[in-house]
Amino acid sequence: MAAAALLDFASVLIFALTGALVASRAQLDVVGFAFLANLTAMGGGTFRDLLLDRHPVFWIAEPLYLGVATGAALLVFFTAHLLESRYRTLIWLDAVALSVAVAAGAGIAQAEGAPAPVVLVMGVMTGCLGGLLRDVVANEVPLLLKQGEPYATCALGGALALWTATALGLAPGFAALLCAGVTFALRASSLAFGWHIPVYRPRPPRQ
Amino acid sequence: MAAAALLDFASVLIFALTGALVASRAQLDVVGFAFLANLTAMGGGTFRDLLLDRHPVFWIAEPLYLGVATGAALLVFFTAHLLESRYRTLIWLDAVALSVAVAAGAGIAQAEGAPAPVVLVMGVMTGCLGGLLRDVVANEVPLLLKQGEPYATCALGGALALWTATALGLAPGFAALLCAGVTFALRASSLAFGWHIPVYRPRPPRQ
Amino acid sequence: MAAAALLDFASVLIFALTGALVASRAQLDVVGFAFLANLTAMGGGTFRDLLLDRHPVFWIAEPLYLGVATGAALLVFFTAHLLESRYRTLIWLDAVALSVAVAAGAGIAQAEGAPAPVVLVMGVMTGCLGGLLRDVVANEVPLLLKQGEPYATCALGGALALWTATALGLAPGFAALLCAGVTFALRASSLAFGWHIPVYRPRPPRQ
Repeated sequence: MAAAALLDFASVLIFALTGALVASRAQLDVVGFAFLANLTAMGGGTFRDLLLDRHPVFWIAEPLYLGVATGAALLVFFTAHLLESRYRTLIWLDAVALSVAVAAGAGIAQAEGAPAPVVLVMGVMTGCLGGLLRDVVANEVPLLLKQGEPYATCALGGALALWTATALGLAPGFAALLCAGVTFALRASSLAFGWHIPVYRPRPPRQ
Repeated sequence: MAAAALLDFASVLIFALTGALVASRAQLDVVGFAFLANLTAMGGGTFRDLLLDRHPVFWIAEPLYLGVATGAALLVFFTAHLLESRYRTLIWLDAVALSVAVAAGAGIAQAEGAPAPVVLVMGVMTGCLGGLLRDVVANEVPLLLKQGEPYATCALGGALALWTATALGLAPGFAALLCAGVTFALRASSLAFGWHIPVYRPRPPRQ
Repeated sequence: MAAAALLDFASVLIFALTGALVASRAQLDVVGFAFLANLTAMGGGTFRDLLLDRHPVFWIAEPLYLGVATGAALLVFFTAHLLESRYRTLIWLDAVALSVAVAAGAGIAQAEGAPAPVVLVMGVMTGCLGGLLRDVVANEVPLLLKQGEPYATCALGGALALWTATALGLAPGFAALLCAGVTFALRASSLAFGWHIPVYRPRPPRQ
């Protein structure tokens, strides 16, 4: 469980940074930064805990998470103007946060003994939900829905790696590391090399 | 409970088809299809289960639901280009899904012994939430909010029918069938004949 | 707990009025009014109850809440055309609802013995979530995200007041009243005098 708590902290911190960066793009005030940072950071894990009936929810059991996210929001509020490109920072931080959150979500579902499809869904959902909430609330086009850019696909790849590693008898900590690594490698390759996966194209209009 | 499980399966399958159709309109990739199909299909029932404190949530207890929704997403991904009009298919499938989901939601609340207003709300909410999530996430105008087109109204009519039938002592299975029938008849009439219900109109500007 | 129930009723009533006003701006039908009124009125409190694992959820335990919200929706449907400015009415009612909901959310978390950061988050979340759901679903710019207008900040101020008052040993009822008063005073001052708090401004482009 220690590995899971560490992953949760890392994921909360990094997602909070992305939430605050989106708040800076929307030019909110400092409490708006904290709100969006906390929403993004706690969103995925909160739904995971509600769905798995784990109470108290992780940030109620350990309010330090709220402090971490709020601290991250303050940090961004006072330093974001130093960044060369807030959007580039945002998508790369989001890639790291996604990787860590997928590992946290899939790992906890695995530890609770959930069947394989539930492990995969929990990984993808925990990974994607925080960012999705952030983008829907701030009225940006969700990164998840950018055409042809693999996002949920990377999360699914990472969750599959975790499930496979556990099925092969590897230790949970190693499986989580592998999961985060696979997710990040997939997402980073896509961002760096412009890898796309085929999107649905309607048939061309008849002549 | 067997009738309820059947209704849940049917509702998951049909809502997943609508989610995948919306994904095709947004030209997502195949994992995006699966994500939107699962979100649409599980949304309403998941909130129903969380609100009524039924654990494990239906698709955690029976992961086959995830397989059904994902299969539906794949089917649409590979065949949607054969459709004459994806939008017409979408609104008619959505009408079927709404009808089935209202029956599933209201029926389970009724079976749990909830009071009448809660049965009605659960029916309307389970029916409307999946489609609402689908449209908000995909950034389409929610079908629920189209001006003057009865949507929640049809769900309410169906839930009322289920409650009345149960109060008159009819069997749950029959009440569920009646509920789905009434919801679909109302929605289909509105779509086919352009039935509208009065909408709020602000007073005309003073001359 | 009696004070908490009163606050919940007041908050449900007033949030329902704001939901119905937004429905009138979107020119929905009467069931759409009721849907948006209920979503707005129940949203914050429902998440609070789910997060704190309080079952049954408040409006399932006491369906009268649903009647109150639906009655408010009907009232607005038939009288909104008499208003001089629906938008002004909306933002002022929203300020009252926010104040009451913050007190209800923070008060219940306090009564459950939650630690200070959780009390603050519950206050802000219960206060802001209903209006946020209303605005996201109705596709309006969330009041919460209006640039430079303190909103979450007012909620935070109120929740801090409640926590401080309780720490000083004041009675829960008085602490709740103080919380609502502080929240409203902050929000009303901002609306009436145009008080702003500093927003994030990107550095000016280099010359």
